[in-house]
Amino acid sequence: MAPETEPLDVLTIGEMVVDFISVEKTDTLGNASTFRRYLGGSPANIAVYVSKLGGTSAVIAKTGIGAFGQFLKSELQRHGVTTDYLQMDHRTHTTVIFISSTAATPDFEEFRSGDYLLRPEEISEEAISRTRVVHASTFALSLEPCRSAVIRAFRKAREMGKIVSLDPNYSRRVWPDHKEAKGVIREAYRYVDVTKPSADDARRIFGPDHEPEQYIEMFHDLGAEIVVFTMGEDGNLISENGRITAHVPTTPVEVVDVTGAGDAFWAGFLTATLDGNSAERSVLFAREIVERKLTTKGPLPSDIDREGIYSRLEESQAEQKKAGRRG
Amino acid sequence: MAPETEPLDVLTIGEMVVDFISVEKTDTLGNASTFRRYLGGSPANIAVYVSKLGGTSAVIAKTGIGAFGQFLKSELQRHGVTTDYLQMDHRTHTTVIFISSTAATPDFEEFRSGDYLLRPEEISEEAISRTRVVHASTFALSLEPCRSAVIRAFRKAREMGKIVSLDPNYSRRVWPDHKEAKGVIREAYRYVDVTKPSADDARRIFGPDHEPEQYIEMFHDLGAEIVVFTMGEDGNLISENGRITAHVPTTPVEVVDVTGAGDAFWAGFLTATLDGNSAERSVLFAREIVERKLTTKGPLPSDIDREGIYSRLEESQAEQKKAGRRG
Repeated sequence: MAPETEPLDVLTIGEMVVDFISVEKTDTLGNASTFRRYLGGSPANIAVYVSKLGGTSAVIAKTGIGAFGQFLKSELQRHGVTTDYLQMDHRTHTTVIFISSTAATPDFEEFRSGDYLLRPEEISEEAISRTRVVHASTFALSLEPCRSAVIRAFRKAREMGKIVSLDPNYSRRVWPDHKEAKGVIREAYRYVDVTKPSADDARRIFGPDHEPEQYIEMFHDLGAEIVVFTMGEDGNLISENGRITAHVPTTPVEVVDVTGAGDAFWAGFLTATLDGNSAERSVLFAREIVERKLTTKGPLPSDIDREGIYSRLEESQAEQKKAGRRG
Repeated sequence: MAPETEPLDVLTIGEMVVDFISVEKTDTLGNASTFRRYLGGSPANIAVYVSKLGGTSAVIAKTGIGAFGQFLKSELQRHGVTTDYLQMDHRTHTTVIFISSTAATPDFEEFRSGDYLLRPEEISEEAISRTRVVHASTFALSLEPCRSAVIRAFRKAREMGKIVSLDPNYSRRVWPDHKEAKGVIREAYRYVDVTKPSADDARRIFGPDHEPEQYIEMFHDLGAEIVVFTMGEDGNLISENGRITAHVPTTPVEVVDVTGAGDAFWAGFLTATLDGNSAERSVLFAREIVERKLTTKGPLPSDIDREGIYSRLEESQAEQKKAGRRG
């Protein structure tokens, strides 16, 4: 690689898959007969959102070399995401996931092939040295050898002083051995700086009987410095170094499409953090992105106006101050 | 099982899969973005055609227990095919195959899971004892343990004096080890009575440099008594006990849809054979079915008028005789 290689803002590692989403609106896959292909996998989607926000990003993931792997590569390229570190392997298939299209909880069936076959030696140290953030999700930790690949990437990133980010999106269906999952998640968190557990994730990992503050403490105990605890309509709690520093409420909006809202949120948070913002301001920025996502049918435009969002944040803060003086 | 269980005409064994066929007409999967699900797998399709022709049939095959396995089971039931011997296994997925919709050679990518996991001990001897014909295809011989399951079914069927039928639909892409394939195909043919190689299959198995008569001899040498050698527009050669007994030309028709024509042909042949017809008359009957298939958009009706087809055969033979007398 040339030494003047462009630096990366975010390098995501793990699952890049073809989502086959049903054309029919239905809660159960059994009622769906037609499916349309989309780029899928949380890390790949985050890389795309970072790029849409004007940042630079890359994905390390394994696919097959057939039509579906080519489709995913061209989708990344179309969005300006670096594909230099993709591992396209003729010995495997691209992972595909069938998903029912619904406003409720989607039904899904995953055909895992390439995604989990990413090997530790396929993690490019050069890629890690180029980037400011390394991000992965728990899905990629569920199977070997991808598990060891992610852990290796996290360890290298920590050694090189990079920000390490983990989405603990644990699903019992994807990873039935809960005890193993807890152990591996614990190991991964040794290297993690920032994490975005949802209340549902926390309940699935640690059991259902705790308060948000207790869950947050558990994530700090595992090793995360910054915990952004998302609670849906109840907003987001931000906790830094063991102390809750802010509660950012959810803006009530007319929801048109929830697909990918969580990934849009975290891409926004990471982007704003890299812009030098506080955790609270980064969540406010992320909330703006999600708001646009939720109120737009289909994907967000390829060129999201980042400066416009910052201006809007300034304005609404000024308005709030005024309202505070009046109140 | 009750001793008065209804007898079966045809028991098919091996691949039952979901075919995801592209909505867009295209030679390459890469250009397809929307896919519709269909019952797939040659043996499963043959069982459906036998049932449409008024016969009784069953399938032994392995699927997952999810939405796709349920879909296949309900498709069989909808067509009156016995599903008592399906192996729906929670530890695996249903095999899915993506196929481009085209009038030329379709592009495909197969995600094999459940189909090849059928185990020898899952072959019901009771099912074999109930049936008159046991049929399988080479696809199912390509991987263990399904390979041993098919061989076991063939051996049992032979022991019980049943008709054993094999479609040697060999594809190098599905089964890259050609030497192994030849060995396994040879082993399977020890039990085979009737077989339907296409000229393309024969070339792929034995190499491209032989005449139809030579290929036919090779299939006899492997053990088949009756060889129906299909040559597309050049018609079909019928060979019995080492001697070519008839050439049945193809009827020129306006082709609307080729999907499943080969399976329709063989279901027709087996049905007419079980009705006590000669090999030649069985091929003539099968040709009628294919003609209807090729000139009909989508699947044939659920209730094909078998007697009507026989009447039509009588008529056209009478016409030919008349023409012969005049000529």
